[in-house]
Amino acid sequence: MKIDYPLEKIKAIVFDVDGVLSPSVVAIGDNGEPERKTNIKDGYAIKKAVEAGLKICIITGARTPNLVLRYNTWLKTEIYIDCTDKLPTLKRWLEENGISPDETAYMGDDIPDLKCMRYVGLACAPYDACHEAIATASFVSKFTGGYGCARDLIEQIMRAQGIWKI
Amino acid sequence: MKIDYPLEKIKAIVFDVDGVLSPSVVAIGDNGEPERKTNIKDGYAIKKAVEAGLKICIITGARTPNLVLRYNTWLKTEIYIDCTDKLPTLKRWLEENGISPDETAYMGDDIPDLKCMRYVGLACAPYDACHEAIATASFVSKFTGGYGCARDLIEQIMRAQGIWKI
Amino acid sequence: MKIDYPLEKIKAIVFDVDGVLSPSVVAIGDNGEPERKTNIKDGYAIKKAVEAGLKICIITGARTPNLVLRYNTWLKTEIYIDCTDKLPTLKRWLEENGISPDETAYMGDDIPDLKCMRYVGLACAPYDACHEAIATASFVSKFTGGYGCARDLIEQIMRAQGIWKI
Amino acid sequence: MKIDYPLEKIKAIVFDVDGVLSPSVVAIGDNGEPERKTNIKDGYAIKKAVEAGLKICIITGARTPNLVLRYNTWLKTEIYIDCTDKLPTLKRWLEENGISPDETAYMGDDIPDLKCMRYVGLACAPYDACHEAIATASFVSKFTGGYGCARDLIEQIMRAQGIWKI
Repeated sequence: MKIDYPLEKIKAIVFDVDGVLSPSVVAIGDNGEPERKTNIKDGYAIKKAVEAGLKICIITGARTPNLVLRYNTWLKTEIYIDCTDKLPTLKRWLEENGISPDETAYMGDDIPDLKCMRYVGLACAPYDACHEAIATASFVSKFTGGYGCARDLIEQIMRAQGIWKI
Repeated sequence: MKIDYPLEKIKAIVFDVDGVLSPSVVAIGDNGEPERKTNIKDGYAIKKAVEAGLKICIITGARTPNLVLRYNTWLKTEIYIDCTDKLPTLKRWLEENGISPDETAYMGDDIPDLKCMRYVGLACAPYDACHEAIATASFVSKFTGGYGCARDLIEQIMRAQGIWKI
Repeated sequence: MKIDYPLEKIKAIVFDVDGVLSPSVVAIGDNGEPERKTNIKDGYAIKKAVEAGLKICIITGARTPNLVLRYNTWLKTEIYIDCTDKLPTLKRWLEENGISPDETAYMGDDIPDLKCMRYVGLACAPYDACHEAIATASFVSKFTGGYGCARDLIEQIMRAQGIWKI
Repeated sequence: MKIDYPLEKIKAIVFDVDGVLSPSVVAIGDNGEPERKTNIKDGYAIKKAVEAGLKICIITGARTPNLVLRYNTWLKTEIYIDCTDKLPTLKRWLEENGISPDETAYMGDDIPDLKCMRYVGLACAPYDACHEAIATASFVSKFTGGYGCARDLIEQIMRAQGIWKI
């Protein structure tokens, strides 16, 4: 599915983790915390986006420190963990980076993402997002959470901007 | 699928773990015990249900202590692990909470759940439950065990009661 | 699918692990050994079969000791791990238990299982077994390896013998 | 799908890991590194190919040492980990082994594999490879990454050479 938005405008792409970068169903750690997964093809696109100058930000309620190692140390995104109310974090981050909401894409899959989805110009959701996220999104990827929705979004934006190099 | 039951009556929702909150297929721990998984979207709905005043109880034969951390410490449900005969636990818990069977939904997927399913007013099963659980359930979710059946049930009950807030 | 075999004869059911009791795709342990999974619904049927007097045996090339804890300590089957050539183990085990090949079902999914499959009366395979196992099997379950093929086989045998109690 | 290439020529088969031998979606380790999975049916075919005299080589950007234990120590392939630029490694390995590109099959799923795919005679991709890999491959397996694409390729080559023994 093609995205109906002026993609050349987009300067920042913001992702939720559970149900977006990681599938909804995951193992439980010894401490009772869900153990998130990662998609290598998403990771490749994230790295290329950062190298091409797009800002990638991850805002999640998750508390697992290996997410920081995976997405910040290795893939060079900015990541905010343990975030119960996501919108203030999103607003502050956009301000600090001088990016306006209509230059921003946000991909979320559940009710805690709705405020952020309504705030940005391009609201996106994976195929298996909750009813409310599907209704709020202007772009619903054909891929489900963890299984390629992030790659789909990044690739479409970078192709539209002519910066998807192979 | 819509549930054919007066859902405004429901005060308690009781879940089995294996094949309901967790998929049937999981890793084996070093001690030989299956390592259950969790669904983040289910978890969101469970937390909202508890906050809205619904009683959520989990009764399982599993012996993995991280289930207690995930479902009691974080999500504030009541959970009984290492339960080989589930009905006495269910009866006692309902009595202690002053809840009648017809105010109760129970979701189970296999033969050890049948007695509880027959005891409550609203017997539920995931799409991939065993033959006997499917035959016993008055509501079969279109989602399989671990992959959204619990969210489906909770959401339908909370919507019917007007307490599913976004 | 119904099994075309006089199931009332069956006294022993023998399983391979990889691709039968566990899916073909699993995590890799720190020591490079695949970390097998287990299916809780299969486990329930295995336990009931053992309690009802059927002999359940597992013969596998896997070397992971947690399989022994799961299938021997908890589920009371007999299990032979680290078995590169399976037929001698199968023959010796049947002899020791006074069971003839035509009283035996064997479920396998790959080429190392073929000799055992040809030796027993009832050769079985999961839906996603390799070509040769499919061609050798007289019963192919509609369930894939790890995802219910063992439950399917055990249930059909126990129903035919009138010992599948609920 | 049949492979349109003179398979009797093939002396070496080279695999990427992420999205080929391992699915694209995996757990994240404590150190932030993705924890690759393995397919037992692929493993069987790899071992048989090596025993039959085919050269199997794995070239991956992954840094997980258990891959070396699984694929080198147990399955006797040659494996190069932590490889950011794969083509020089491939060229050097082929030279050292006196194998020409048209005697080589390479299976990859993402953009870092394209140069190697164009270099060899038989470029292959799993069903869920990225657009560019699908477009570059002359053989696209009907199996997805981690779920049988490697077995499919090895089996077809060994059958064509008459060395797939059962």
